[in-house]
Amino acid sequence: MTSSAGTRRANNEVLIGKKPLMTYVTATLVQLANEPTVLVKARGKSITRAVDVAQIIVKRMDNMGYKIGHVKIGTQTLQSEDGRARNVSTIEVQISR
Amino acid sequence: MTSSAGTRRANNEVLIGKKPLMTYVTATLVQLANEPTVLVKARGKSITRAVDVAQIIVKRMDNMGYKIGHVKIGTQTLQSEDGRARNVSTIEVQISR
Repeated sequence: MTSSAGTRRANNEVLIGKKPLMTYVTATLVQLANEPTVLVKARGKSITRAVDVAQIIVKRMDNMGYKIGHVKIGTQTLQSEDGRARNVSTIEVQISR
Repeated sequence: MTSSAGTRRANNEVLIGKKPLMTYVTATLVQLANEPTVLVKARGKSITRAVDVAQIIVKRMDNMGYKIGHVKIGTQTLQSEDGRARNVSTIEVQISR
């Protein structure tokens, strides 16, 4: 994954990567200021961090009234460098205000 | 977490720990033979592995008709050894047949 693809994709999506956790919390909060719902997405080992980001937003910003909507999990098939297909788990957490 | 608390809690729960992934896949499949729904639970860094377990069961055992029900995420407050409270994220994936 290149660094430029790290933080954001569509207008209301935040893709979790390897940056410090609060980077993604801030990015999500910025998008929640503009959009009614934001999707926090991650795959592989970043899945845990996506849950952390969602929980930090909902618990610490309690007075802001952010809520967790659906949580979807899935599988993405990636081509690894040796040409074999690898399955990686994905998560999508919907946060709305 | 002690080793004995690692794999199972209630009848229809599988708590994901540090054992090999297929241990939990097997434990979940055994429980699905007896129970209509099983909850795969994890916290902290094991969250990713819980998603992996659920996806392996649903995708690889395609012909068995297992389905993912709700996916819940939450926060658990633990007392760390220095007496401070630490928040840890949790996940619960419901698998049903």
